[in-house]
Amino acid sequence: MNLFGDVPTQLPDEVFTTLLDADNVRIERIVSRGHASPDGFWYDQDRHEWVMLLSGAARLLFEDGVVEMKPGAFMNIPAHLKHRVEWTTPDEPTIWLSVHYGEQQ
Amino acid sequence: MNLFGDVPTQLPDEVFTTLLDADNVRIERIVSRGHASPDGFWYDQDRHEWVMLLSGAARLLFEDGVVEMKPGAFMNIPAHLKHRVEWTTPDEPTIWLSVHYGEQQ
Repeated sequence: MNLFGDVPTQLPDEVFTTLLDADNVRIERIVSRGHASPDGFWYDQDRHEWVMLLSGAARLLFEDGVVEMKPGAFMNIPAHLKHRVEWTTPDEPTIWLSVHYGEQQ
Repeated sequence: MNLFGDVPTQLPDEVFTTLLDADNVRIERIVSRGHASPDGFWYDQDRHEWVMLLSGAARLLFEDGVVEMKPGAFMNIPAHLKHRVEWTTPDEPTIWLSVHYGEQQ
């Protein structure tokens, strides 16, 4: 598998692929294309998440503002910091690399 | 900082940048350009390392073989699995994303 390749041409839903599942660390690739979180849905995760955008473009919404993500952008989202994916570009696949870490909080 | 950008034009040595340093997880970016591990040097790390190649090209050497890495390639290197960087392309910067995880072993 190649992280920049192996992208389905049809993406009715986001595709989550676990790349590593170890004690306290899980790495996954997420592929979106025009997807956003459902209306009114906020992630409220038990673990921290470090995420980078490998390709495409996205907009994350937090309770106190917006973060635009382009390729090479990264950020750390502490556990229980509420956020949602407000927008991903419909023009090409948006590929995320996500590292979930830490104990459940 | 952008992971694909902010690359020094002169790279006399590899450049290591820590992106996250948390309990049991450390994420770093490594930029190489034609660098290899010193002759006879083998990494023998106390922690596991999940590594992906973001750009450029590299060749990793293990005691039982060689792994060619191109953009989007990734692999997991368990603690104490001896390895060395045999080659990185001199033609462009090679950018690695490295996730060190687990307890010291």
